[in-house]
Amino acid sequence: MSISFAGLSSAKLMHEAGLDVIVLEARNRVGGRTFTKRDPSYNYVDVGGSYVGPTQDKILRLSNELGIKTYKVYMGGSYLHFSKGSVTRFTGTWPKFLNPFAWLDINNAFRYMDKIIKEIPIAAPWDAPRAEEWDHMTVQQWIDAVCWTKAAKEFVRAFVNANVTMEPSEVSLLWFLWYIRSCDSSRRIWEVENGGQERKFQGGSMQISERIHKILNDRVKLEHPVSQIKQDGESVMVTCHDGTTFKAKYLVVAVAPSLYLKMHFEPTLPPLRNQLIQRVPMGSCIKNEVWYEKAFWRQKGINGFSSVADGISLVGNTVDDCKPDGSHPGITGFIMADRARDVCDWTPEERCKATCKFYAKLFGTDEALKPVGYEECNWMAEAYSGGCYTSTYSPGVMTRFGKELRKPFGRLRFAGTETATKWSGYMDGAVEAGERAAREVLFAMGRIAENEVWQEEPEFEECPDVPFNISITERVAPSVGGALKLITFTGVVVIATIAYQRLR
Amino acid sequence: MSISFAGLSSAKLMHEAGLDVIVLEARNRVGGRTFTKRDPSYNYVDVGGSYVGPTQDKILRLSNELGIKTYKVYMGGSYLHFSKGSVTRFTGTWPKFLNPFAWLDINNAFRYMDKIIKEIPIAAPWDAPRAEEWDHMTVQQWIDAVCWTKAAKEFVRAFVNANVTMEPSEVSLLWFLWYIRSCDSSRRIWEVENGGQERKFQGGSMQISERIHKILNDRVKLEHPVSQIKQDGESVMVTCHDGTTFKAKYLVVAVAPSLYLKMHFEPTLPPLRNQLIQRVPMGSCIKNEVWYEKAFWRQKGINGFSSVADGISLVGNTVDDCKPDGSHPGITGFIMADRARDVCDWTPEERCKATCKFYAKLFGTDEALKPVGYEECNWMAEAYSGGCYTSTYSPGVMTRFGKELRKPFGRLRFAGTETATKWSGYMDGAVEAGERAAREVLFAMGRIAENEVWQEEPEFEECPDVPFNISITERVAPSVGGALKLITFTGVVVIATIAYQRLR
Repeated sequence: MSISFAGLSSAKLMHEAGLDVIVLEARNRVGGRTFTKRDPSYNYVDVGGSYVGPTQDKILRLSNELGIKTYKVYMGGSYLHFSKGSVTRFTGTWPKFLNPFAWLDINNAFRYMDKIIKEIPIAAPWDAPRAEEWDHMTVQQWIDAVCWTKAAKEFVRAFVNANVTMEPSEVSLLWFLWYIRSCDSSRRIWEVENGGQERKFQGGSMQISERIHKILNDRVKLEHPVSQIKQDGESVMVTCHDGTTFKAKYLVVAVAPSLYLKMHFEPTLPPLRNQLIQRVPMGSCIKNEVWYEKAFWRQKGINGFSSVADGISLVGNTVDDCKPDGSHPGITGFIMADRARDVCDWTPEERCKATCKFYAKLFGTDEALKPVGYEECNWMAEAYSGGCYTSTYSPGVMTRFGKELRKPFGRLRFAGTETATKWSGYMDGAVEAGERAAREVLFAMGRIAENEVWQEEPEFEECPDVPFNISITERVAPSVGGALKLITFTGVVVIATIAYQRLR
Repeated sequence: MSISFAGLSSAKLMHEAGLDVIVLEARNRVGGRTFTKRDPSYNYVDVGGSYVGPTQDKILRLSNELGIKTYKVYMGGSYLHFSKGSVTRFTGTWPKFLNPFAWLDINNAFRYMDKIIKEIPIAAPWDAPRAEEWDHMTVQQWIDAVCWTKAAKEFVRAFVNANVTMEPSEVSLLWFLWYIRSCDSSRRIWEVENGGQERKFQGGSMQISERIHKILNDRVKLEHPVSQIKQDGESVMVTCHDGTTFKAKYLVVAVAPSLYLKMHFEPTLPPLRNQLIQRVPMGSCIKNEVWYEKAFWRQKGINGFSSVADGISLVGNTVDDCKPDGSHPGITGFIMADRARDVCDWTPEERCKATCKFYAKLFGTDEALKPVGYEECNWMAEAYSGGCYTSTYSPGVMTRFGKELRKPFGRLRFAGTETATKWSGYMDGAVEAGERAAREVLFAMGRIAENEVWQEEPEFEECPDVPFNISITERVAPSVGGALKLITFTGVVVIATIAYQRLR
């Protein structure tokens, strides 16, 4: 029994292993934080989790098995970076600026980040050598210590906003570094090509859940929010809002960690888990889509991917979202962290208008002011998600409470993408978590051995992990501190040389 | 309809105003975070909220009306301060150390804290001039910026642990300063005499709820955890676990903010409130009591109040807890923040043993190793409290989500001590919140005017607010930075004088 995307992949595996499963879903649809809206005017649109890429082998294998194809997000042309009211076109991973120190600074920050995340064991981040130090710092403190230039500080903040839909001052450095590590590296999580945003599913990501629903058929009970979970040595008894009860040998709870609070447990959860579930708030995100007559950005040599780093503009990131055949030209926008909170009480019409107004500045054309369609999902308003994309950790939580996340409790096993070790927070993490929890149940029932619970996933061949081509410049470029030392040293040598020549 | 201590004071006021009320209580007892255990061997003991003092006029008025008397906590003799394995006796508010800089540093930190908290409007802390700056800092960052000596850093950390049962690196500076402000000042919240710990209730604090229960009689429904709250323009429909439903014109929800997640709302809560309730975790606290044959500490001239600042010892604060007539000699101990999390999976016997072992060191006698009784409550294990004493805010939450806390939603009004403006987190705050929410309902029903909702409480004469006698030394003593400048300046003058005399 389970709820959400991870729950369905868990139930599918148990069902295939011959177990008798029931899936209890709170909403009137399957899919959880993936949500494909459909309408004749735009065909379909993912207003929730949507992207997949290399190293996300579990979701790629599962979707392929279910007959769902991926396509590559359009990448022809330049990226955009928007800051202080002005737009820069660039290629490569990180934006370029007029001030040469800014690029050095950004390059150094991410190079350093990708170096130190390697110290973190993905299945036990609390065991990292510097876990105590990092968990008692916010990401903002790290940014202030590592970055010299305003441009770099702003861009790293935008990077945090984009990846965890929170402000850097709100989250633990240890948790954030672990999160990046679980997604491989800062490049892998950020990039479109060869990164987390490389592909989308033809027809939308919610189809994965819908096809599993079809397989499991009436074993899936929609609109069955669970209010009570009782267990004894023999079984688990689950009660839904309408009073219906279900009895099972084992229960996989597959919801975002903070939603455990929605259920009353008997016996009550262990103390640390009882406190953990109050300490893992979901991020703040509104995802929207604006459709236009034509893909005017493509005509200008812009691929549609942009990062916005001023901390003021409504949308923090955009991605091209034309259908694979070029139809329904659209731009996906992410309103994140503080910006999402600021516009929570606006109407969708107001958010559409502000988005288009911003796009006119970003893409440099009034064509952006003439949308032909708009859709959005404010995930902060969803009681059965609590927010998007994932649960977040403020300082101190990971080292003090993190270990509780996957620890079985009696006949309960815990899934949900937050319990994954790879691509936690993503669809791929949901599949890892769901399948691992399913195998924990199979192990508890004596069907498989303990060492079969965790399984390595072979690479999905059609979407291979290509090593990033990091240039020599990126590798050897000094940090701003280093550059200043070099300049000072060079200056001293020049002055000394001049002085020596004068004295001669 | 309501749950908890604040809920009962709310229901009492509405009942007296002639409304028809029903109180739904999740537990099999009233009292919420006040919990008086009874046993012939020790008569009674408060293992939850217990202390009252000057300026807590609402709870003093209410308890007096219900015929419950207070008594003063024993204060004859010295305080103890325990740090780095050694004990110091002291009198006055803050501990004294061999290193004179340590006292200067502590005195300066709290003097500065009491100065800056005055900038914070108690009903709208997000409007403080420095709200943005303070809400994006942890209290630890402030400690590191303000304190020079290790002793002061440790003591301020112990002060944070003791007042909010969290580590300074876990909480927002703005929230913490507001919390101290809501309790008047650092001295008022910390002190026994003339402070928050001046008095206790004869017979235990839970009697207050029990006597209101008696007045309301079978209008109070125990063991009725609420799982669903539906409302329309006309009424509110509440469903409990056992399927019983109650219909009302208005509903006062009086639970700790994170426990709103326990209930499924229709329509769902507004987006910011839906996210707020995931961002207000309860503190971590185990409160215990050890009884002895004799009050051996009193015989040694020690009053039993101690602060422990090494960050290692199990108990962070102790208070004498002999009954007013001197019977049942006992020591109340608070296990807080990281220490509470460390010993969560110990048995009560193990915690008793470790507590007594520490008391032998603290009080300097093996008599502490021979307890005649032990009681405790691990509040982290309580599903219907989530922790103790109060909900806490990590960086960013107060400025982004704080405004939602008291905002009515349709026919719902919100109580719980966390929504109070004075002594939030305390019994007094619970009464403020409960009565204010009750008057919000009366206003909505046209029984009172809007300006009658918030009412000033006259001083409770038997327990007056005495201004603190802050010595001239405390007022004018320099900070460590100031002292060092003074010393440097004096040194320069001395050297200059000597040099001048030599040259003459």
